[in-house]
Amino acid sequence: MASEQTVSEVGEFGLIDRIRAALPAHGAAVVGPGDDAAVLDLTGRVLVSTDMLLEGRHFRRDWVEAVDVGHRAAARSLADLSAMGGTTTALTVGLGVPGDLPVAWVLDLVSGMVEEAALVGAEIVGGDVTRSDSVVIAVTAVGTCAGPPVLRSGARAGDQVALTGRLGWAAAGLAVLGRGFRSPRAVVEAYRRPSPPYAAGPQALDAGATALVDVSDGLLADLGHVASASGVHIDIDPSSLGEIPEPLAAVAAAVGADALSFVLTGGDDHALAATFPQGSVPDGWAVIGRVLEGAGITVSGESYDGPAGHDHFA
Amino acid sequence: MASEQTVSEVGEFGLIDRIRAALPAHGAAVVGPGDDAAVLDLTGRVLVSTDMLLEGRHFRRDWVEAVDVGHRAAARSLADLSAMGGTTTALTVGLGVPGDLPVAWVLDLVSGMVEEAALVGAEIVGGDVTRSDSVVIAVTAVGTCAGPPVLRSGARAGDQVALTGRLGWAAAGLAVLGRGFRSPRAVVEAYRRPSPPYAAGPQALDAGATALVDVSDGLLADLGHVASASGVHIDIDPSSLGEIPEPLAAVAAAVGADALSFVLTGGDDHALAATFPQGSVPDGWAVIGRVLEGAGITVSGESYDGPAGHDHFA
Repeated sequence: MASEQTVSEVGEFGLIDRIRAALPAHGAAVVGPGDDAAVLDLTGRVLVSTDMLLEGRHFRRDWVEAVDVGHRAAARSLADLSAMGGTTTALTVGLGVPGDLPVAWVLDLVSGMVEEAALVGAEIVGGDVTRSDSVVIAVTAVGTCAGPPVLRSGARAGDQVALTGRLGWAAAGLAVLGRGFRSPRAVVEAYRRPSPPYAAGPQALDAGATALVDVSDGLLADLGHVASASGVHIDIDPSSLGEIPEPLAAVAAAVGADALSFVLTGGDDHALAATFPQGSVPDGWAVIGRVLEGAGITVSGESYDGPAGHDHFA
Repeated sequence: MASEQTVSEVGEFGLIDRIRAALPAHGAAVVGPGDDAAVLDLTGRVLVSTDMLLEGRHFRRDWVEAVDVGHRAAARSLADLSAMGGTTTALTVGLGVPGDLPVAWVLDLVSGMVEEAALVGAEIVGGDVTRSDSVVIAVTAVGTCAGPPVLRSGARAGDQVALTGRLGWAAAGLAVLGRGFRSPRAVVEAYRRPSPPYAAGPQALDAGATALVDVSDGLLADLGHVASASGVHIDIDPSSLGEIPEPLAAVAAAVGADALSFVLTGGDDHALAATFPQGSVPDGWAVIGRVLEGAGITVSGESYDGPAGHDHFA
């Protein structure tokens, strides 16, 4: 069966042909895959962001199905553009794959990226395929913004800090998988396939957000970036984050971790955090803190005693 | 000294800070590195292309200095946009690096990319850095085009085939390095740091080129793509390619290769090949063949008996 072939067996151009055949007919792109570059018809502020997803570093093939790796790889870049208040039009994908990888794995990966991109009306318009020792995925999102993009640097003393989306679920899922377990299923699924609140980015822009960021390094780390870029102090009220969800509490108890640390420092759920002028927080966002004069990030006025987020070289 | 530190020692955010400090102040970008996405002010047809450059596959650190790896990595994507008739405005860079890599190596790499991008007035506007077992570089070029982009599919019977830039030099350089030699210096330098004729892409668009491609897989392979996409037959006149340059002849004699095969099948010099209506070939381009009705690619009317170009999984 064709699906049992490896990428070495079909070769570079054979693999590219199969990937292109698996892509939906293009709509937004003037020129899609197959030429030296893709061509998009965009006007005004063009947003661009690139993220890497590496086997062994960001995922393990025995922990995550190919289709979910595709969802995760696309989600990271789509969430970045949402975190500017924008929407992705097109993705390009740089892909390195081992020669003994089944072609079916690659096609499932592409299918996951296509499905995730479709959630915001985006499509894959081009890329590059080469051989590598382990799977390497570089996804670039290109899109636009209906108004001036919402930066990290616009938070002002007096603003409210608000959040939409989940925190800590992916981190709890990773903790579970790291110990060889497969449940609670809800957190494992959250790790495998995040559900970023993409539409909340443009919503925040429209509502007049002063700063906006997606939570990929952890809430404290990413709001720390906002505090630093804006020259302000951000204080989080942990009680406003609500009850610790039951699956997170269960994982924390089972692995001897602090459930709140999943919430405050876990990345990969791609929640969105923003600051808004008083009274401007839109529906679907929860107020979780406030912006003060000064510097740094605190929880109930105190420094948080733990790692603030993920450093890929730690 | 700071330059002797490894990327593990400075950490992810330390490395990102050092890279950002090494980038020139941005000009074309509305928002440069440091936020969730970069913001460009572009209008009309937006071109985008991603290329991967992997250690062990596309370069060896003991064969090529970091600054030259940077030049090569940027050149591949810049040449892709030139091969649409366009010009690059901005690059994003996805970078995977081993923890024990010196920070100085990464900064030299970035410096090479910055210098190469500056040749067309482009700049690095963002990216992603993570740890990997070997060096992984994914460069995405975003730019624009002054008119309808020149595709691979527009060649018509009766057109002239023309070329600008060098062929076979990088392939000869690779053959030399692969046997442990470091000379002839001219071909080794050509392999380490290509000199694509970037300006010739927009020139070809302006002159009415019907098809345009950059020679990255080899002349026959890339013109084969044009023939296939355009539904035509392309015939190359090898005598029109001129005398085999002396360094290529020397390498071919030394390694027992056919010098013409370097010219016809060697990639990585990023020459540009195009088809033009009769009499429209602009200055600086050499006519090397003609477009006929039919299919496929021939040399003096005969199939070329050898590998047409590089397959990354072969």
